[in-house]
Amino acid sequence: MATSVLLTGAAGRVGSAILGGLGQKYDWQLLDREPPPTGRDEEVTYSDHEYSVADLSDRAAVREAMADVDVVIHLAGDPRPEAPWDSVLANNIDGAHTIYELAIETGVEKVVFASSNHVVGHYETSRTPEIYRTADSYRLDGSELPRPSNRYGVSKAAGEILGRFFHDEHDLSVICVRIGNLTKDHPPIDYERGQAMWLSYRDCAHLFDCAITADVGFEIVYGISDNDRKFYSLDRARERLEYAPKDNSADFAEVEPPQ
Amino acid sequence: MATSVLLTGAAGRVGSAILGGLGQKYDWQLLDREPPPTGRDEEVTYSDHEYSVADLSDRAAVREAMADVDVVIHLAGDPRPEAPWDSVLANNIDGAHTIYELAIETGVEKVVFASSNHVVGHYETSRTPEIYRTADSYRLDGSELPRPSNRYGVSKAAGEILGRFFHDEHDLSVICVRIGNLTKDHPPIDYERGQAMWLSYRDCAHLFDCAITADVGFEIVYGISDNDRKFYSLDRARERLEYAPKDNSADFAEVEPPQ
Repeated sequence: MATSVLLTGAAGRVGSAILGGLGQKYDWQLLDREPPPTGRDEEVTYSDHEYSVADLSDRAAVREAMADVDVVIHLAGDPRPEAPWDSVLANNIDGAHTIYELAIETGVEKVVFASSNHVVGHYETSRTPEIYRTADSYRLDGSELPRPSNRYGVSKAAGEILGRFFHDEHDLSVICVRIGNLTKDHPPIDYERGQAMWLSYRDCAHLFDCAITADVGFEIVYGISDNDRKFYSLDRARERLEYAPKDNSADFAEVEPPQ
Repeated sequence: MATSVLLTGAAGRVGSAILGGLGQKYDWQLLDREPPPTGRDEEVTYSDHEYSVADLSDRAAVREAMADVDVVIHLAGDPRPEAPWDSVLANNIDGAHTIYELAIETGVEKVVFASSNHVVGHYETSRTPEIYRTADSYRLDGSELPRPSNRYGVSKAAGEILGRFFHDEHDLSVICVRIGNLTKDHPPIDYERGQAMWLSYRDCAHLFDCAITADVGFEIVYGISDNDRKFYSLDRARERLEYAPKDNSADFAEVEPPQ
């Protein structure tokens, strides 16, 4: 029987990348506070799967969606880097706590938490733009302390730490994926930072596939393609999750400025 | 003119240790949601200082207490290791955000944040009781990722990360003190863990004195006395804050079990 996976925030962009690649591979439960998007992405057929419309603050609805699943991929939350504090406090920090707590209550084995490059955004401050270029060997690898670049990043760092707590306390498997810059078809144009942290749709689906199947306790990994330009190490993702990305923003030479 | 310092949570135990040692040295503004304690501690005369009774959710009152101060020592919050999530989310995480945000708005130069040993409580899990004994050279030094032992610890880790954000974003000086086990007169009896992370009242006052005067950007330090038993490094506190503790739980031999 296929592994059963709850995808929160299913209607968002990361959700569509995951479902586009893995829609047939797992037994999906979808949850979002918005109804399924229409017409945006013909590769994803939301109607193939059970879909609940509920906010994370509706604990009963979230619990029901989580009742019979093995794994939760938790994408839901306010995704705006510029989101105000009250929103990220409620939607991202309190929301993540709800997911972890219900995962323990319902016997879920693993939570894959959508974290963000904004958790470590301020490491870039003193090294730009060199840090975005191929010649720079500087790497963040997930062992560094958070240095968020905004309140959204603070909230994602808190979600990681909540995951660590629920892992240590309850032996829940938790994998935090610090997602880079997810764009479809090609890397961001004229945006070196975005090219350095580009994550293609197929690498995104593959990375979450790896996270679903990996046998790990707690991990923080970076979610980017195998870009020539990079300042995030892929070592942990390769070693612990067997992530094998296929894309590289440098292969889209026409959209790369001179190095 | 003496440095002006706002002490939030002034009526608590850490507040009384700080005021007992430094009451005459600074120009204090005291804030607590409870009125000044009476009769508990004759070394602290709360009536010597301006004292505001307000909860951190009363933003106007907190701002007023902060209006003309140079430094904030932020102790206020739910201090219970077993505190429920809703309380630490509001009092500790949202409360710390209020303090940092108002510090920027009012031109405060530095926030000294009372963090906790519970931020890293789960590092102890696999090494007890050896970790509490003199022969064990294992040390946490503040560069390790948080591994909280409870939701209170999660909230204190979030407060540290908020501090890092406000430092990186606004150049606010932020010092996070992971306070050990503060007890008066002598270390905890028959409690090896408490002896390993003992912080005497006079070392506590001295450490916050160092934090008030140190010229640093962002630091995380451990707040314990110079105990023979220890698993927290004092290196950062000594090097960056010139902390020179005078007490050692081993000097209270009558309360130490055999090693």
